[in-house]
Amino acid sequence: MIHTDLIVSADLVLTQNDSRELIENGAVAVSNGVLQAVGKADEIRSTYTAGRDIALTRSLLMPGLINAHTHMPMTLLRGKADDLPLMTWLTEHIFPLEAKLTPHMLQVGTRLACAEMLRTGTTAFNDMYLNEPQVYRTVDECGMRAMVGEGLSCYPTLGCSDPALALEVIGAQADELAGNRRIKYCVAPHSVYTTNEETLAKCADFAQKRGLPLHIHLAESKTETAQSLKMHGARPVEVCRRQGVLGPSTTAAHCVDLTDAEMDILAETRTVVAHNPRSNMKLASGAAPVDALLKKGARLGLGTDGASSNNSLNMFAEMSACALMHKLVNAEATSLPAQTVLDMATLGGAEALHWPGLGRLVPGSPADFIALDLGAPNMQPMYEAASHLAYAASGHEVSLTVVDGQVLYENGSFSSIDYPGLLEEVREIQDWMRRQ
Amino acid sequence: MIHTDLIVSADLVLTQNDSRELIENGAVAVSNGVLQAVGKADEIRSTYTAGRDIALTRSLLMPGLINAHTHMPMTLLRGKADDLPLMTWLTEHIFPLEAKLTPHMLQVGTRLACAEMLRTGTTAFNDMYLNEPQVYRTVDECGMRAMVGEGLSCYPTLGCSDPALALEVIGAQADELAGNRRIKYCVAPHSVYTTNEETLAKCADFAQKRGLPLHIHLAESKTETAQSLKMHGARPVEVCRRQGVLGPSTTAAHCVDLTDAEMDILAETRTVVAHNPRSNMKLASGAAPVDALLKKGARLGLGTDGASSNNSLNMFAEMSACALMHKLVNAEATSLPAQTVLDMATLGGAEALHWPGLGRLVPGSPADFIALDLGAPNMQPMYEAASHLAYAASGHEVSLTVVDGQVLYENGSFSSIDYPGLLEEVREIQDWMRRQ
Repeated sequence: MIHTDLIVSADLVLTQNDSRELIENGAVAVSNGVLQAVGKADEIRSTYTAGRDIALTRSLLMPGLINAHTHMPMTLLRGKADDLPLMTWLTEHIFPLEAKLTPHMLQVGTRLACAEMLRTGTTAFNDMYLNEPQVYRTVDECGMRAMVGEGLSCYPTLGCSDPALALEVIGAQADELAGNRRIKYCVAPHSVYTTNEETLAKCADFAQKRGLPLHIHLAESKTETAQSLKMHGARPVEVCRRQGVLGPSTTAAHCVDLTDAEMDILAETRTVVAHNPRSNMKLASGAAPVDALLKKGARLGLGTDGASSNNSLNMFAEMSACALMHKLVNAEATSLPAQTVLDMATLGGAEALHWPGLGRLVPGSPADFIALDLGAPNMQPMYEAASHLAYAASGHEVSLTVVDGQVLYENGSFSSIDYPGLLEEVREIQDWMRRQ
Repeated sequence: MIHTDLIVSADLVLTQNDSRELIENGAVAVSNGVLQAVGKADEIRSTYTAGRDIALTRSLLMPGLINAHTHMPMTLLRGKADDLPLMTWLTEHIFPLEAKLTPHMLQVGTRLACAEMLRTGTTAFNDMYLNEPQVYRTVDECGMRAMVGEGLSCYPTLGCSDPALALEVIGAQADELAGNRRIKYCVAPHSVYTTNEETLAKCADFAQKRGLPLHIHLAESKTETAQSLKMHGARPVEVCRRQGVLGPSTTAAHCVDLTDAEMDILAETRTVVAHNPRSNMKLASGAAPVDALLKKGARLGLGTDGASSNNSLNMFAEMSACALMHKLVNAEATSLPAQTVLDMATLGGAEALHWPGLGRLVPGSPADFIALDLGAPNMQPMYEAASHLAYAASGHEVSLTVVDGQVLYENGSFSSIDYPGLLEEVREIQDWMRRQ
């Protein structure tokens, strides 16, 4: 018998492996944060023992969902300014409030985001924010997996008081995270409308030299396109292309306002698109041409964006929104079928975080997985697991969330977060925010 | 002191009264299934005592949500045929399976639907199905509130083996429910494409003579319009108008494919539109012109449709989908703001069920209300209650569901449903359904 740290079995294991195998009465065995075995529960238990053995009933085990684009501390601004268009929302409400966020607030907002994600089955995410060390140090404490980057603009921000020092700032952050097994750093110029071409070129150069991925907001709305044309004399994708920002190590969030030629560029450069359906709908930014991008072979992940334009960080709600909105937009009920959105939220997320092996349950992969209670009324009966995950689940069926082999959420309890204490901290910030 | 049956207090009571009042530290007192008082918790407790007094913490109390259009037993077909257009889905998959459903299956499917609704904060609904007595007798046992009607076609169905006898069949059903305080009967011709004009006229006449509301599928898709033109030489709204089907006692589900003149007809006749955003998106039926209908003063409720085209019966998911899809369709972030969709899911539902007093917490109204746990991560912090209900809630924050003064769901337990037994019954039907 081989000893492992953890065995979890369930009625059904959805592997998301290359053949999208489903294993009835399946199990996983975990050692040192890595999946040692995935298979039939009886075979696993006849080969492995474990420090902890969890036998789940009426449950489905699957890879943790991966949020391809978010801004963790924006949980604090959830519902603070709704039903407004992107630029009004951003410049008149969000930016002024964000400028006042203290390091403590950033930590609390991040911890709340981790709690929400763990509660709803997200194990990894791609974050861009201001004063990112407050984010990633908190994420490290909470035990989650992430790709993180300081959002860079051509004006002073919370995290970079002098834009001329941007590369020093992010260099130090990248150094701090070197060797961290759960958190990797990326270079994150905010967008073409908040930076200049020199900054974009420097970021691309820095990312290449340091071997870091890139993360940027791109072509989120027609307004952005108009601003880009005015500022740079070119549309956003062209600005990024000519400054070397696009490529297989880049994740571009949104990509709503695209021409057909721009879709080709994204597909040909192997740039990963992080699609954010709920945020795009809520801010009336439009519908990203996801169906067309998929047909061109583009790489796509799925993200929530920040909690203030969503207003949750729930990847089940995001899968559902993605599957439904593109059927509407394309007037075609076969668009974005359940398995496709599930792939985007798992395997596509692994691409968006540039993290091979994530998003599937195969031996050798990071042990990031979740279990869902199939006994919830909305999960009954079940004919196709993918259908229930994309259309029927609310996210609150999640009963177990494991990241890097550690049980971080289980039946209402968080192991890495003092949740009652967090609620008290959030209440204080809420009271402060109401006075702003 | 006045003795009542039940007092429930919460941090916040969202009344949905005419001034949309929010009461901090509020409470309701209930006697004989009716709200006796709604106000400050300390004032209520200084005036009333109760057989049971529930003091909720970190909670919001609000009217139960009302599902304006559904087909309860279709929970059994949840996820059985996805990613297909309306007419293919209906004629090749759903109709053949429905024809095989036994009375026992209809009861089990209905009980499962009741469990899902109670779990996610829906207290009342408008149902149309086949062999409706199996539905409403089960609903009666489960303690929910509903308007129900036998779906009539011009061909034999589960509930009416001879279309010539339709009025006798529904007359007997209406008689059976006469005097039921929680369940009211309506006349429910299925649609213009499954009936003929003679049937529609007879239904309208019968409804008027018996003083019953009417419920019909109307203008759900362009395909329906084409069928109507072929069968009746007129578009669906015109067919209904000329046969007397429209009017203030009629609820018309879907209303997607409408001309501007048809929107005027619906508004002028005071016909209530039951909007089903998730089903319309999933079947690629299109986007109902909700914004335009609201501007014309039309009456609108919100529904899930059946669980097999949604695939849940969760009115929180429906509110969110409604708010988001119309922002996208109208390219306008101010479309369908949070309070508007909340009104549709409560007050609009009361109109769709033709049940004055429902959908709000005011003295004299039926005691149908729910509580939500505001301590869930996705509900924190909170600045605007309506925003959280429309955008952030998943429905699984519901911790208490009361219908007609009876606590039917509380913290994971159902009082009127043997839930473990129900799961066993569902499993047997699932196994049978897999063999079809």
